Amino acid sequence: MKTILVVGIGTGSPDHMTMAAIEALNRADVLFVPDKGANKADLADIRRTIIARFVTGAPRQIGYAVPRRDAANPDYGQGVDDWHDALGRIFGDLIAQVPDSGAGAFLVWGDPGLYDSTLRILERVDTPIRVEVIPGITAIQALTAAHGIALNRIGEPVLITTGRQLGSVETDTIVMLDGRLAFQEADPDLQIFWGAYLGTPDQLLIAGRLGDVAEDIVATRTEARARHGWIMDTYLLRKAQ
Amino acid sequence: MKTILVVGIGTGSPDHMTMAAIEALNRADVLFVPDKGANKADLADIRRTIIARFVTGAPRQIGYAVPRRDAANPDYGQGVDDWHDALGRIFGDLIAQVPDSGAGAFLVWGDPGLYDSTLRILERVDTPIRVEVIPGITAIQALTAAHGIALNRIGEPVLITTGRQLGSVETDTIVMLDGRLAFQEADPDLQIFWGAYLGTPDQLLIAGRLGDVAEDIVATRTEARARHGWIMDTYLLRKAQ
Repeated sequence: MKTILVVGIGTGSPDHMTMAAIEALNRADVLFVPDKGANKADLADIRRTIIARFVTGAPRQIGYAVPRRDAANPDYGQGVDDWHDALGRIFGDLIAQVPDSGAGAFLVWGDPGLYDSTLRILERVDTPIRVEVIPGITAIQALTAAHGIALNRIGEPVLITTGRQLGSVETDTIVMLDGRLAFQEADPDLQIFWGAYLGTPDQLLIAGRLGDVAEDIVATRTEARARHGWIMDTYLLRKAQ
Repeated sequence: MKTILVVGIGTGSPDHMTMAAIEALNRADVLFVPDKGANKADLADIRRTIIARFVTGAPRQIGYAVPRRDAANPDYGQGVDDWHDALGRIFGDLIAQVPDSGAGAFLVWGDPGLYDSTLRILERVDTPIRVEVIPGITAIQALTAAHGIALNRIGEPVLITTGRQLGSVETDTIVMLDGRLAFQEADPDLQIFWGAYLGTPDQLLIAGRLGDVAEDIVATRTEARARHGWIMDTYLLRKAQ
């Protein structure tokens, strides 16, 4: 049976790589690198940097294009489902290129368990495969480390959610995947800890009372996104103590 | 000014160490190793293993005893506050042993941002210090990786909470620090993904319908805890799809 290694690579700093992730990339016969299509060029660059720095052998690298999800589909679930189907066919073709009893590796941004589709897409592949997951540093840890704060208050819960799902903030809340800047609708008396390009030399951090810093975050985010051509950001919202 | 490095070391596997964590330990003049008192012996062993494997110089190692929190204090907040005060005095003494303009490092289980007190205790230290946080792999990532699952459903939120705070499970929920086995009171039709000693050779995993596996988890946990003298475990609860 072929082994598919789903390797968390952290949020953009090669220093986020764990020993287990480095070992896994070196064990793979084939590395799959999304480098065309909807994928952001800088992200492909970071993957190539990681491979150049940590992979000592010469595994075959296979690039592939990531299709764009139909964001115009009014049925969000159906749009995702169609997108995963398309990616499942691409993954099937990639896995066909792994030698029998060999291993192929996907390099996954952050951690494969958190708002990433790789594991779900692999379930759609017909070939019998053994999947091995290597955990990676997430944007949540990179955010709190960069701000020098704890994620949770003592003994208190934390909600992880998306911009799409953000409602009234009763619990300390991490927001990811927020292209619509949902924080602008939240209570201005909340505290926000925002970060973008976390762990990279381009890292941006803003923290403060939401009402005081929201405009600055929007402006900073817009400018940085235009300059880089992409942005990945996340933030923590919580009530002032 | 002295630099205090708060270094996430992952959940017990030396392979969870990141490049940044290894660099930080090697940058430190002094490593602080909790090795006596309430701290579990196996955890001190894992810290020593990590130091022996990754630290190439010979920084000074200073052991210290972790006082026990007064779990009998009916006021949980006050009990934690007293405990942090005691630890703050110990940290002050430890930091006094760091050379001027030098660096000392704390090796923190998991990630310094998630249910860990080191950052809060450092705020109580009178000496002016510069704190630098290095993110680490958490039990959450180690749990989902070991089970080969995603933490979240597509686009859905996840709640991180403690056994003490676990209520009715409406959102997919990670439970940490659950010494009271709160899952026994939860809806038996929930799915549970449980893990202990995550990332180590002693790792234990149980998953299934809660009503079907709860007894097995309790028995496995009790036996393992007696054998090791300590246990660290965590679990994900969610409604069946």
